[in-house]
Amino acid sequence: MTNIQQMAMKAKAVSPILAEASSEQKNRALEAMMTGLKDQEKRILEANREDIALAKTSGLNEAMIDRLSLQNRMDGILTDIEQVKQLPDPIGEVFEQQTLPNQLQVVKCRTPIGVLGVIYESRPNVTIDVSALTIKSGNCAILRGGSETLHTNLVLVDCLQKAFVSAGLPSEAIQLLASANRAHVQEMLRQHAYIDLIIPRGSANLQEFCRENSTIPVIFGGIGICHLFVDASADFEKALMVIDNAKTQRPTVCNALDTLLVHGEIAPFFIPKVVDALGKKEVRFRMDEKASKICSGCPLAGEKDWDTEWLSLVLGIKVVENLRDAIDHIRAHSTGHSDGILTENKANAELFVKAIDSAAVYVNASTRFTDGGQMGLGAEVANSTQKLHARGPMGLKELTSYKWVIRGNYHVRN
Amino acid sequence: MTNIQQMAMKAKAVSPILAEASSEQKNRALEAMMTGLKDQEKRILEANREDIALAKTSGLNEAMIDRLSLQNRMDGILTDIEQVKQLPDPIGEVFEQQTLPNQLQVVKCRTPIGVLGVIYESRPNVTIDVSALTIKSGNCAILRGGSETLHTNLVLVDCLQKAFVSAGLPSEAIQLLASANRAHVQEMLRQHAYIDLIIPRGSANLQEFCRENSTIPVIFGGIGICHLFVDASADFEKALMVIDNAKTQRPTVCNALDTLLVHGEIAPFFIPKVVDALGKKEVRFRMDEKASKICSGCPLAGEKDWDTEWLSLVLGIKVVENLRDAIDHIRAHSTGHSDGILTENKANAELFVKAIDSAAVYVNASTRFTDGGQMGLGAEVANSTQKLHARGPMGLKELTSYKWVIRGNYHVRN
Repeated sequence: MTNIQQMAMKAKAVSPILAEASSEQKNRALEAMMTGLKDQEKRILEANREDIALAKTSGLNEAMIDRLSLQNRMDGILTDIEQVKQLPDPIGEVFEQQTLPNQLQVVKCRTPIGVLGVIYESRPNVTIDVSALTIKSGNCAILRGGSETLHTNLVLVDCLQKAFVSAGLPSEAIQLLASANRAHVQEMLRQHAYIDLIIPRGSANLQEFCRENSTIPVIFGGIGICHLFVDASADFEKALMVIDNAKTQRPTVCNALDTLLVHGEIAPFFIPKVVDALGKKEVRFRMDEKASKICSGCPLAGEKDWDTEWLSLVLGIKVVENLRDAIDHIRAHSTGHSDGILTENKANAELFVKAIDSAAVYVNASTRFTDGGQMGLGAEVANSTQKLHARGPMGLKELTSYKWVIRGNYHVRN
Repeated sequence: MTNIQQMAMKAKAVSPILAEASSEQKNRALEAMMTGLKDQEKRILEANREDIALAKTSGLNEAMIDRLSLQNRMDGILTDIEQVKQLPDPIGEVFEQQTLPNQLQVVKCRTPIGVLGVIYESRPNVTIDVSALTIKSGNCAILRGGSETLHTNLVLVDCLQKAFVSAGLPSEAIQLLASANRAHVQEMLRQHAYIDLIIPRGSANLQEFCRENSTIPVIFGGIGICHLFVDASADFEKALMVIDNAKTQRPTVCNALDTLLVHGEIAPFFIPKVVDALGKKEVRFRMDEKASKICSGCPLAGEKDWDTEWLSLVLGIKVVENLRDAIDHIRAHSTGHSDGILTENKANAELFVKAIDSAAVYVNASTRFTDGGQMGLGAEVANSTQKLHARGPMGLKELTSYKWVIRGNYHVRN
């Protein structure tokens, strides 16, 4: 038996203990996590500096190194755990109660999913966020973090496991797969006898790898080619602020704006405003022919550009004839993450909402709100762009399944 | 481009039309289906007789031929469509409304999943049930029925497609993959660019094939190794009726009883009652050592028998020491479909309900109730035993996803 299979079996074996743990016990574990992380802060930061030093040696770029660092971030991590602790426990919640005509009492009751396999890269705070959500929702998890954060994650998971034990929960509730080898990930993806769900947080390449190799259900997500359509009726000053926010507030993330669609009637005066305002913030543009005629000097977009998630200060701009044209473009190029309309016309807003089938559809707001924390979920374990199980930000409830509980008086079927 | 890829692309292309169709239009399509099937009854039954004749020639067994036949079943099929028509339209339903502290208005809104791939065997009424649920929930589907029902399905799908067109919906809403070739199924399982969900209705072998080959999410289910535990406090006369019903009312289906667990205290007098009553109905038994000592003459169960879905008049009987012992056996051997306890002890009932993590958990009722029709869903598209997306009977609502709709006043994120 391989190491990975053993980890998966251990997780499955302890999962009923987590499933039956009381809210009090799970909250005690979260408290112990906070205490343990505080007590071990020095050791954690030491390991983190080791990872950073190695990352610099191996030539990782500044942005990657920044995501890796826990310096000045420990307080935020503890706050995340405290928030998850404050949230109501989803497990055991009873919903859709009914009494059938034959007097059978039927309810649905929320249960944990069981064992999660979470595969992610760089940011070590994900280790803590995911663990807090996993424990609170009565699940177990096998975490496979990025190889560049190995030392940090080893210390973090050691702290977590000690916290669980001190709260009377098994240390195997969270296990770390400390391997940079993709063959090991591949093996993990085939443990359908023990692992119930795979959550890959990372590149399109990682997700594709999971799609091709997993025999376990996978939550796809986190790839956002996001659009805003500026309707002819929009409030232009305010629209400009929203576009600026969606593009520049944090350009490296999945809910940042990628393509701006502008109604043809307003394009001649509105696009120059956008170029002026965002250009000052070092945004670079890729324009369709019509837009580039309005703003000569801006480079033409290649056909592939409409299918590119920029994750940087690049913005595609395209002139569309009308709302229907905008809808068609979004349907053809969106990854179904976050798309919005800016308009004062209520009928157009509702037509857009009905026609666009993305995880988050916006009317007069920045796409940057697609986020578990912003939506009141406390934290998020993933941002799903697929249609099964959960869509958009996934918090505690999205880490649950349900069972039907049927109570009778020795009922038989006719 | 292959034929299958073309079908999948066509389905994806028309899926927004289905998604935007009004309840009235979808109900008109369901009415037209009923009218069309009634008008074409003679042609349908002719094609069905052709399939039956071929099945007899190729030596299919009586049970299979019975499942294949539509003789005397057309009324039931029309009633199923009418029931689906009567159910409320799930699409567009708004739930979990909230106003965030920053005044953003957030709701979730129910949407169709998109394109379903349904793979099933024999029974041609599934073609109609699945199509009715698919249309009502705003989805499209590619159906791959059993090769032994090919002639029947060709006529049925022709009727359905004409009905859709008469209601102003595209004929491609339901397409039939008329192929007995598994390589074609394999190709279907890789159309993740166009198909959103695979529902295999059939053998464990078919489900395993889908698990290994699909790059599309799969709903696993319909394999039921079902248990009843008779507690020491049960009402024995009534318990016997429930056991009889669970085992003999329809032994060939997934929610029929497979293993009876009997509390040690009552085993000596209760097991002979079971053997006496069910033996008269030609049930054959497989017993553990303790039970077989009580009823000598009954064959001993092999270790594999506890992991066998009988689908016939065979019943495993095992003596357990207590409730915890029963729970351990069920956890080790259940497929998570339907498991129950028969008891007058409320604390034991609640402990059982908490500890057993199956799609349907029963207290004092027959396992035979795990069924969409019985649970008020009108019909069912599958009976899920996995934990993602939907568990247990799946009706209209389980064929939906949701999107977040966020309405603001040009909100930006801080």
